[in-house]
Amino acid sequence: MSLEALIADIGDTPHSVEPSLVRRRSRDYFWYSQALAEDLKDMRGDIVVMPRDEADVLRVAAACARHRIPLTPRGAGTGNYGQAVPLRGGVVLDMTSMQATLALRPGAIRLQPGARLHVVDAETRAHGWEWRMHPSTKRTATIGGFIAGGSGGVGSVAWGGLREPGNILGARIVTLEETPRILELRGADVGKINRTYGATGIITALEMPLAPAQDWVDIAVAFADFPAACRFGYEVALADGIVKKLLTPIAWPLPSYFGPFGASCPKGASLLLAMIARPSLESFKALLAGAGEIVHEADFDESDDRTPLYEYSWNHTTLQVLKSDRNFTYQQCLFPHDRLLESVAQMTAIFGDEVWHHLEFIRFGGRVTASALPVVRFTTRARLFEIVDIYERHGVFVANPHVVTLEDGSRHKRVEADQLGFKAEVDPHGLLNPGKMRSYSAVRP
Amino acid sequence: MSLEALIADIGDTPHSVEPSLVRRRSRDYFWYSQALAEDLKDMRGDIVVMPRDEADVLRVAAACARHRIPLTPRGAGTGNYGQAVPLRGGVVLDMTSMQATLALRPGAIRLQPGARLHVVDAETRAHGWEWRMHPSTKRTATIGGFIAGGSGGVGSVAWGGLREPGNILGARIVTLEETPRILELRGADVGKINRTYGATGIITALEMPLAPAQDWVDIAVAFADFPAACRFGYEVALADGIVKKLLTPIAWPLPSYFGPFGASCPKGASLLLAMIARPSLESFKALLAGAGEIVHEADFDESDDRTPLYEYSWNHTTLQVLKSDRNFTYQQCLFPHDRLLESVAQMTAIFGDEVWHHLEFIRFGGRVTASALPVVRFTTRARLFEIVDIYERHGVFVANPHVVTLEDGSRHKRVEADQLGFKAEVDPHGLLNPGKMRSYSAVRP
Repeated sequence: MSLEALIADIGDTPHSVEPSLVRRRSRDYFWYSQALAEDLKDMRGDIVVMPRDEADVLRVAAACARHRIPLTPRGAGTGNYGQAVPLRGGVVLDMTSMQATLALRPGAIRLQPGARLHVVDAETRAHGWEWRMHPSTKRTATIGGFIAGGSGGVGSVAWGGLREPGNILGARIVTLEETPRILELRGADVGKINRTYGATGIITALEMPLAPAQDWVDIAVAFADFPAACRFGYEVALADGIVKKLLTPIAWPLPSYFGPFGASCPKGASLLLAMIARPSLESFKALLAGAGEIVHEADFDESDDRTPLYEYSWNHTTLQVLKSDRNFTYQQCLFPHDRLLESVAQMTAIFGDEVWHHLEFIRFGGRVTASALPVVRFTTRARLFEIVDIYERHGVFVANPHVVTLEDGSRHKRVEADQLGFKAEVDPHGLLNPGKMRSYSAVRP
Repeated sequence: MSLEALIADIGDTPHSVEPSLVRRRSRDYFWYSQALAEDLKDMRGDIVVMPRDEADVLRVAAACARHRIPLTPRGAGTGNYGQAVPLRGGVVLDMTSMQATLALRPGAIRLQPGARLHVVDAETRAHGWEWRMHPSTKRTATIGGFIAGGSGGVGSVAWGGLREPGNILGARIVTLEETPRILELRGADVGKINRTYGATGIITALEMPLAPAQDWVDIAVAFADFPAACRFGYEVALADGIVKKLLTPIAWPLPSYFGPFGASCPKGASLLLAMIARPSLESFKALLAGAGEIVHEADFDESDDRTPLYEYSWNHTTLQVLKSDRNFTYQQCLFPHDRLLESVAQMTAIFGDEVWHHLEFIRFGGRVTASALPVVRFTTRARLFEIVDIYERHGVFVANPHVVTLEDGSRHKRVEADQLGFKAEVDPHGLLNPGKMRSYSAVRP
């Protein structure tokens, strides 16, 4: 690998080979998985490059192709799958300097991939719009990282996941070739770059649809047990007249790991965390009809000194536990929509105290169901894979978060676009985040 | 019936006993049904009273109770069930003078029942909000008539029906008693006055949730056959990332009755009518992917000289046919959500040319399904009821629109509130739109 030649080729594009910086930028939150922590602990790039604009990206892509140097694009590194960890060294392409808004029109925004989700949201809200969905890492993550590594999040209870038609409008990418091309993907083609960890092109712009901004209220309700929290959450999820962005039932003892907020909740109670639009708040409470106790109600607030409720949801739940005990990890499930509560009850019974469940009500393919990132007491790597098998034998889909390849991790992907065929077009030498799409063989190695 | 005593009691409240006016205000669009046309043709009130405010309503209610005179409230009379037709004479209470907006706050409006839907919509849109749903009669109907007689409409593909929690926030009603009371219903209690034709109280104010206003585009797509139009409509209905307000597949030959608009569509083609938010238009077309031909695309426009596409949908489809041939009527169906397209195919095959299907994709109880107001070639009253039976034997719910009572017409009601028990509280003498709730016996006759 000719790093000197690369550096000569990229001219004044900002870069660094300083070891501690390169190590830091070669990591994400893969350590939530003890398996990945072991597999990826020594992986790192050789150089971090920080393009200022698309011209820089073109220069770096051409240089990598010419010198056959791997390139792994990354955003803020908030993912959990090791997607930002280079398996074969080379360039770590840190996109966080490219954060400009390119166009804002009613209902849609076009922007550079390094834009921070919470910064953009503040900008669009001033015009009456907000993100349709975002990960629980909204306050640090970038839009490019979310699209390249995510599937949905806070807001998916109303809008479904990123893969639903209409939830990504366009993507501009740079190919990894001696003479890199710029491609604009529209319509179903945008699926070719969603959740491929940058292996199918370097994203230089995204066009995203927006939701009308709502005045959200954070609300937490305590229930005597987890099934009661799930039942009420499901009822609200099905109530199309109630505008919501988050519906997260959380089983005890998870709330006991939630710091001061958890301490303010009744001991032993399971919670439902919700974001409800203010005009729907009365209807939410009317539907609750005293079945649970409202233990928290506050104007939605993402100020630095506050913790919005969504930071106890999705994979932040795992983080809250890991803060005090590293001996936990998680799984990633999709429950069947046609026997949802039964399936949840069955799995909680089977795993008992080994797996602590919390659900995320979502729409998936137009139907209300629940995904989940249950917190798992870690014993062995083998047991982690057994747990995956047990879920799957009972009809729960698992996207295994303890493996690094897309193929092994994505049992419930339903992408239409031919990502593998597309990779052959945009990455003929097999240099984009190599090793993550294990079924790919470079067409011109 | 002491009309003179009543007139003396109501003071200067505007009223008229002029026969042609009384006859006109005693009618609605019940004549869509040949059965109701026959049953109701001679029914009329004795006097029309037009309250200016709630004080007038209180005066009229007290007088009716005192003199045991029936009272039938009405809005603009755009319904099809004869709900505004007094079966036992008495007062027709025309609410159209009470049309004030009482309060407008983000996401909700409080207003008098006689407010015209399209007037209110123009007002709220200026503040960034619009009706969540409205009947196809939006340009003439009142909000009070819609709530007292309707179940859903244009917008229910996103928001479900009026009965979904959160789709009516509050209702203020006057009871029919010697000393009338004013009640404010909130939460699930609002169900007590929804689709009871005014038999459970005289609505004097409503509080309705609003949707963020969208920039709609009217679009019609022609397909080779009805199943293809249904399949694509279903796909869009399930696509939560595509913002829509109307999705109406319409079988040929219905479009041939659509005047100039129909004439501009390919002969023999079935249509899908849609209202799509502008930011979702590209995604809609990408999903279509050439499977049908776009034959109409225009900015949504409700100006006097235009016909928005929704006026070919819901029960306006029947009206379009009746304009040129009075020998048709309709049925009112709800297809099962778990075998939707199969059920539609089965029923179209069974009825052949006798019943022309068009669907309305809606959410119902949180699930995507379709209601329908199929146009029926009329032969006999007995056959109308046979058709109802055939649908029901095949698992399609029918709300029979050829009967005048609530009980007989509402097979798919799923109201939680005890409307009958509530009627005993608010109408002890059984004077509110008497005959429409046939299972009610006055507690103090």
